[in-house]
Amino acid sequence: MIMPPGPIITLTTDFGDADGYVGAVKGVILAICPQANIVDIAHHIAPHDIIQAAMALAAAAGYFPPGTVHAAVVDPTVGTDRRRIVALTEKAFFVGPDNGIFGLVFRDQAPARIFSVENMQFALKGTATTFDGRDVFAPVAAYLANGLDPAEIGPEIENPVPLAWPDNVIGADGILGAVVTTDRFGNLISSIHYRDLPEGCASFVVSIKDRRVPGPVVSYYQDAGQTAGEGYYALFGSSGYLEIACPGGSAEKQLSARRGDIVEVRW
Amino acid sequence: MIMPPGPIITLTTDFGDADGYVGAVKGVILAICPQANIVDIAHHIAPHDIIQAAMALAAAAGYFPPGTVHAAVVDPTVGTDRRRIVALTEKAFFVGPDNGIFGLVFRDQAPARIFSVENMQFALKGTATTFDGRDVFAPVAAYLANGLDPAEIGPEIENPVPLAWPDNVIGADGILGAVVTTDRFGNLISSIHYRDLPEGCASFVVSIKDRRVPGPVVSYYQDAGQTAGEGYYALFGSSGYLEIACPGGSAEKQLSARRGDIVEVRW
Amino acid sequence: MIMPPGPIITLTTDFGDADGYVGAVKGVILAICPQANIVDIAHHIAPHDIIQAAMALAAAAGYFPPGTVHAAVVDPTVGTDRRRIVALTEKAFFVGPDNGIFGLVFRDQAPARIFSVENMQFALKGTATTFDGRDVFAPVAAYLANGLDPAEIGPEIENPVPLAWPDNVIGADGILGAVVTTDRFGNLISSIHYRDLPEGCASFVVSIKDRRVPGPVVSYYQDAGQTAGEGYYALFGSSGYLEIACPGGSAEKQLSARRGDIVEVRW
Repeated sequence: MIMPPGPIITLTTDFGDADGYVGAVKGVILAICPQANIVDIAHHIAPHDIIQAAMALAAAAGYFPPGTVHAAVVDPTVGTDRRRIVALTEKAFFVGPDNGIFGLVFRDQAPARIFSVENMQFALKGTATTFDGRDVFAPVAAYLANGLDPAEIGPEIENPVPLAWPDNVIGADGILGAVVTTDRFGNLISSIHYRDLPEGCASFVVSIKDRRVPGPVVSYYQDAGQTAGEGYYALFGSSGYLEIACPGGSAEKQLSARRGDIVEVRW
Repeated sequence: MIMPPGPIITLTTDFGDADGYVGAVKGVILAICPQANIVDIAHHIAPHDIIQAAMALAAAAGYFPPGTVHAAVVDPTVGTDRRRIVALTEKAFFVGPDNGIFGLVFRDQAPARIFSVENMQFALKGTATTFDGRDVFAPVAAYLANGLDPAEIGPEIENPVPLAWPDNVIGADGILGAVVTTDRFGNLISSIHYRDLPEGCASFVVSIKDRRVPGPVVSYYQDAGQTAGEGYYALFGSSGYLEIACPGGSAEKQLSARRGDIVEVRW
Repeated sequence: MIMPPGPIITLTTDFGDADGYVGAVKGVILAICPQANIVDIAHHIAPHDIIQAAMALAAAAGYFPPGTVHAAVVDPTVGTDRRRIVALTEKAFFVGPDNGIFGLVFRDQAPARIFSVENMQFALKGTATTFDGRDVFAPVAAYLANGLDPAEIGPEIENPVPLAWPDNVIGADGILGAVVTTDRFGNLISSIHYRDLPEGCASFVVSIKDRRVPGPVVSYYQDAGQTAGEGYYALFGSSGYLEIACPGGSAEKQLSARRGDIVEVRW
């Protein structure tokens, strides 16, 4: 009960749970770092959906103990010359493709240093070009968990690729944003964070697709007395983003809404 | 190989595997109890489906070593004043909302004491109201794994909310029950347990939706000689409930059956 | 950080993530071998799909450290008299039904000895017949991880059931194979391995369903400059099999292709 636990390596991917890709990544890690405590954050990210992966990682990473290594691999252009990076924040290590996947988590914990993975002695030998999750990111994460100095992995860089996140338009009396993803419950999660509102702003109106959301903002998804599936309303979700939800049902279905639909807050 | 392993915390949720919710729960647990051995029981419980969660937990919990902490979070009314509970049986701890989710496992291991989680010093600080899995149940599970006395968490209660399970009608010559869930293989699992039948009762007729299931009860899903997808029959599944199955196919599809459809046993 | 880690047991099943079946397996393992490091390879294998399970296991098993115990359970005829086996290669142990599920991994690491599981003292006591994953394979895997000599489990056998894998037709100027599975990204994976081609063969034409795949073979799924979802092409995937893929889209959908469709290579 009081032994020192192994180092933590988390995984966030779009590999699913049917093809053995996640298993291969875990095998590589355990062969290099047998003490690793491998923790799944998410593997059913929609294929190639970098925004969804960035949100899942940002929803979870901040809760892990200091020193955790987070590997995130949604990597549609694997095999091309896109960069691979290792980032070091004051709290954690991040390993993955340089495509914006760390764009949200870097808002919460700014990277102190970012390195381009170029020293291929830390990669698996082989001819495969399409599975850097297994061949590059897994071994690099495992060596970092073993104590490798990230500076040995390659040259430092300063300009990671930003996340393709909608630019909110913030005005004097409101904010224009957009739906960025839908969670498993059909909640429509917008790009508008409670920190984007004026401090103390308690009274405002929310619209989605030009339909006014009945107010005020609530603090639960469903009250025991509500009829499941009827109506919709707004709330700030567990990561701080404004959401449109339907009690016991799916706001996504009820509003036929999807990524990119306009969400507006007006005060 | 002979080190003392860390304490086990299992997770049963409807959080899925794409939004980072499970990852956040795991991070919170590991920050409080780094030695925890976190074991996923199920995360693709249908959203808000307390019955399915209760069945998954009951199918698994009894097999874990003594002292395991089971956190189960299907919690549609999170954020309202529904209670949160910690239950202590002779074998394990259970942590989750007071909505019936432990109703089946309590049939196998009766709770010796149940506490209402009211001492919020064990919760995460923050303003979120919609994610008690992360903010309350995860830290409470982790502190229990660290050895916290459950009596410190809040006052003892005696009347946990029962599970919304169909009431079987047991007569002199038969039982009326219902389909309670369908598993991944399309097997229709009923509310009728083999313990509900008279002892030694070996000859009986099963019906579903007023259609007689060809008998007798069998002991396998598919024999190598059967044509996949043809016919259906009854058996007692691995948790002891009467099921209707189709060899190599889905009884759910073949019979267009679903939760609530009547299942009858007559002897 | 330098403690000796527990033994590794991997799981590959078609149990999904909603019914508690995987949880029961894990509980049984941990009750027998508390030090086990249980690693999920895949649980969303399509129900009864032995070929997909064989591919997932073969894609991952070779990367694990020596001594790993791999339990693989896709077992449509559980409860009948089909055999259960334990195989020992120079690198690992394999536990599961004798139905071909180990057919691909045995190409990479030939089994030195195979035993039929017949000594039921290592099984759970009970009356269930339909869940050998929980009642037989999980305890046997856990005892093996504890150091049990596989010869104690039952008699040695020599003729495991082969995998139902398409027989490639290899001629002087080409190979006829077939689509064996589709991965999560819609990539059509064929039965043709790069080892099946003549050594040094660099120029060849690929066809699927009598449609010529534009050549040459590429080394990435999508270049940043390509339009997502347009066109298709061939490449050798991360396990060495020839695949037909669509940049940023699904070749399965674009070509309306599925398992069994003919894939041809001609040089």
